[in-house]
Parts: sequence; structure tokens; C-alpha cells
Amino acid sequence: MSLTVVGTVAFDAIETPYGKTDKIIGGAGTYIALSASYFEPRTNLISVVGDDFPKEYLQMLNEHHIDTEGIQIKEGEKTFFWSGKYMENMNVRETLVTELNSLEKFDPVVPKKYKNTEFLMLGNLTPIIQRQVIERMTVKPKLIVMDTMNFWMNTMLDELIKTIGMVDVISINEEEAEQLTGKHSLIKAAKKIHEMGPKYVIIKKGAHGAILFGEGKVFSAPALPLEFVFDPTGAGDTFAGGFIGYLSKTKDISFNNMKNAVIAGSVAASFNVEKFGTERIQNLSIDQLNERLAVFRELTFFDIKSF
Amino acid sequence: MSLTVVGTVAFDAIETPYGKTDKIIGGAGTYIALSASYFEPRTNLISVVGDDFPKEYLQMLNEHHIDTEGIQIKEGEKTFFWSGKYMENMNVRETLVTELNSLEKFDPVVPKKYKNTEFLMLGNLTPIIQRQVIERMTVKPKLIVMDTMNFWMNTMLDELIKTIGMVDVISINEEEAEQLTGKHSLIKAAKKIHEMGPKYVIIKKGAHGAILFGEGKVFSAPALPLEFVFDPTGAGDTFAGGFIGYLSKTKDISFNNMKNAVIAGSVAASFNVEKFGTERIQNLSIDQLNERLAVFRELTFFDIKSF
Repeated sequence: MSLTVVGTVAFDAIETPYGKTDKIIGGAGTYIALSASYFEPRTNLISVVGDDFPKEYLQMLNEHHIDTEGIQIKEGEKTFFWSGKYMENMNVRETLVTELNSLEKFDPVVPKKYKNTEFLMLGNLTPIIQRQVIERMTVKPKLIVMDTMNFWMNTMLDELIKTIGMVDVISINEEEAEQLTGKHSLIKAAKKIHEMGPKYVIIKKGAHGAILFGEGKVFSAPALPLEFVFDPTGAGDTFAGGFIGYLSKTKDISFNNMKNAVIAGSVAASFNVEKFGTERIQNLSIDQLNERLAVFRELTFFDIKSF
Repeated sequence: MSLTVVGTVAFDAIETPYGKTDKIIGGAGTYIALSASYFEPRTNLISVVGDDFPKEYLQMLNEHHIDTEGIQIKEGEKTFFWSGKYMENMNVRETLVTELNSLEKFDPVVPKKYKNTEFLMLGNLTPIIQRQVIERMTVKPKLIVMDTMNFWMNTMLDELIKTIGMVDVISINEEEAEQLTGKHSLIKAAKKIHEMGPKYVIIKKGAHGAILFGEGKVFSAPALPLEFVFDPTGAGDTFAGGFIGYLSKTKDISFNNMKNAVIAGSVAASFNVEKFGTERIQNLSIDQLNERLAVFRELTFFDIKSF
């Protein structure tokens, strides 16, 4: 067993300028595990759902070779539900409903076969649960990556800082990096986050791509310019899934290979936004991923070596 | 003679969170020509100044092999003066003073030896003057590049659209592209601008780099992440100067070589913001440019070819 992911498995209802969905499968854990599954075919998922969660959804995850033994099904409880609406330019979203339900008392169980996983991905969740998962592993993973969001900075900063201190890589968006560090310059923000613990910092910039800082080096990955962003839900999670999935597959955690992993995440995320929810990331082929990788190379590479 | 630039040569007084300057040399034409001079040593500059413009500044331009015969010196008039103040995060600037002075009745004279230049760069100026310069060339240049700004969209959109229809490449920032086209998606904005004339569209995104669109292809160049942006004045002009200077030097206007030119512009602009005004871009060496080019390669390149 190679990669363990903890994160929400949820119902989402999404509205964008292009349409709206009923309750569909969502949650950070879902997006991360699906995205990772294209790179690492042995992905474990730790989460919790209610007894209203359809078996078909679990089957769908299993068909992607995602082990769902770590997903607790709480009898008599309902699955976490989130509903949101995106405004015209897609950069602003409004949360309409958040029902924690079974997530409220989530006490993560790490199945025995997950306990010596080499790669651990902590999806966006309370920092306390993220830390519990780290502590419940038998062997310290080779690499721990965490995602988080501004909500935890506003509500439990001390807990968040403790968890940040235990991970190797943090994935965070630009505004959140500024909020966490008080620094507008991304270089200064990354430096301050390094001091908090993580050796590697990924700052996500949405349509402007992502930047990886570590070992005194910097790597800047573009986002693919798109004519339509149909639904950005889960783009950051899909990015994180591609990143950790690629590292888990290649088992090489050098800065140089992390560059490739950032591209894997960017490629996966570029698909995710093309359809509602997980629809696109559920239905990908390695050929499609490779075709888009070629597009990223075209988008990025130039041939001049000296002026 | 290879490259002709038209643009303002001015006095600037700049205030940033890091300090302030007295009246120093500024203007789009100055930044463009200085930046281009590192790539193309035969750069002509068309502009106008008053009789208060110091000879030392003209000498400084000449020392960069910039031909200043095209700069008219108006007796009894003063040089264009602009003063601005940058706010804490450097993304917002307030114009404190704009005195057009000699620029008000600027009637551009194209010296005979400039008239068959292969490359023509129209710096940000009224679109009428930009068009006059095109019309006063004897031979249609191999490539015409223009820069512009939102001010002309607000005050003389019809004239601007006429000029845009006559150029091969337009360099414009993200907000201006949206204002000009009404499109938020950069792909849609670029398509609409292609329809207006330019075969190539460069959208400048400041700290997020620049994107080149043309021939159905896209190239995304990062900006160098910097700890301090000392003074962003002239960054876009310096970018344009590096772009056209590199093309003029290599005489290759394929999309592939335009990628390199975008990188040349990005490299030059990354220096410009390190000091006040033109100070940094006045004092560069080809070795420094090549060192930074290597940094851009590190920043951009990854080695994965397939997943």
C-alpha cells in the first residue's frame, strides 16, 4: 500500500453561470483520491459518510482502485452536505448551505493495512483530525502533504499551526498564504511558512497556476488558459491529488521530481474544471492525461539558452 | 537601421513604500529603447522633450547606442512630467501630477534614416500619433508592435481601434484586455483582439507573468517571483522593449521565436523593478541577462514527457 488520503466525502450541490446540479458526490477526499488514482493505483481513502450515501458512489471509487475500507458509514446519520454558487467571473463563490452531519464527530480510523503507507495526503479538514491521522500511522510516512483553507485560520489558528509543523509539504492558495503569514510577497510568505515546518510550499494561484518553493529553489507552473471554466469546485483538491499521486507512483521526492508532480496536479486540475463536480475527473484515460501534458510542455517551453 | 521606437521621453517623480525620487528620466519610449538596446544595438527613438531636458540624459541614451535624432527638442517648452505614488502592495498606483507640456502638440517626425526600419514599436501614446508614425514610414515594417492603456479606451476608443487594426502584435494588460473586449476569459479576449487585427496578442499579468496568443497557439511565461518589488514603473515598457529588441536582433518572427522574445522581455522587466526608475535597466550587462535567463529556465522547465 502506497498512498493514504484523508478528506471529506460529501454531497455537493453546485450552481455556476452554466447551470446547476442536484446533490452529487463531492468532498476534498473524493477529488484527491480520484485524481491520484490515475497515477497511483493503490490509494486508500479515510473519511466518514452517513447511511444515505449511495453504494454506487463507493463502487465508483473502488473501480478507480481506491480502497474504501477507511470510509466509516455512520448508521442513522447523514452525509456532509455543501452547497455553493459561483458568480459570473467564477472567482467568487458563495456558500449557500453547510451541513456537517456525520463529519461533526468524525474520529478517523486508520485501518491496519494503511498504517505504514509511504505517502500521506491530508485533505482540507479540521487540523485536529489531520493531526490524529498522522499520529495514528505506525510508521512515519516518507512524505506528508497537507491542504488547508482560511476557515481554519479564522477559527483554530493554534491547532492549524501545530499541524503545519508536522508536515513536509503544504498546498495553500495565494490569499490564504498572505493571511497566514501577513506577507504579500509570495517569496516572503513561503519563507515564513518554511519556518513553521514545511520544507516545501505550494502556492496555488487559480487561473495563474501554482508556484513551488523548496530547497531555496522556485518552480512556476502555468494553468492552462481555458475558454470555459465550467465549475471550479474541487480544482485545488484535484491538483493536490495529481501531485501526491505522481510522487507516490515515482517514489522520488527530490525538488526536480516535485516539479513534475506540480505539473501532474496542474494537468489533472485543468480537466476537472471542464465539467460539473467530479464528472470529468471520474472519466479520464492516461492517454488524455499524456495529451494534455504535451500541451503543458508547448505552453511552457522555449528554446533560447543565451541572448 | 533595424528598430524604431516611438514613445514618451519624460520626467517622472515616483513614490513607493521604499522611498521617493526627485524628477528622474522616465517615459515609455525611454524604458522601451533602453531595454531593447541590450538586444538590438541599432535602436532609433522618436519622441519630443522641452528645452529643460538635460543633455546628459540624451548622452546616456546615445551611450546605449540609441539614436536620438528622432527626439525633437522644443525651445521654450517643458518636458512631459508625470508623478505617481504606489500603495503598500504595489498593485495600485495613484497619479499625482500629469503635465503634458511639449507632448501636447507632438507631431512625430520620422527621420529619413528611420523610414525603412524593419521593426517598429509603438509605445503607449495617443493612438493618433501611433498611427502617424506608421503612415510616415516609407516601407511597411516587417513587424509592428503596439502597447496601449485603458486611458485611450476611455477617451478615444474609435481612434484606438483604428490603430489596433494596423499592427501585428499588441501588448496589453489583463484588465485592459477585459475592458477592450468585454471578455473575462483571456482566450476569448485574445480571440476578439485577433478579430480587430493583431495576429499576436500579449496579455501582461504583472506578477503572474505574460501570455502570448497567436497562430492558434499559446505560450505562458512566468514572472520571476521577487522578494522586493522596489518600483514597478516602466515594467510593461521594459517588457515590450526586450520583446521587440530580441525579435529585431534575431529577425525571426515565428511563434516559436516570439516565445523567446517574451522571455527576453520578462527577463528585462524582472531587473527593471529592482530599483527606482530606469536605474537598473540603464546598468545591465549581457552576462547578467544571461544569468537571469538561466533562472527563468530553472523556474519553468520540468523533465517529464509522459505519465
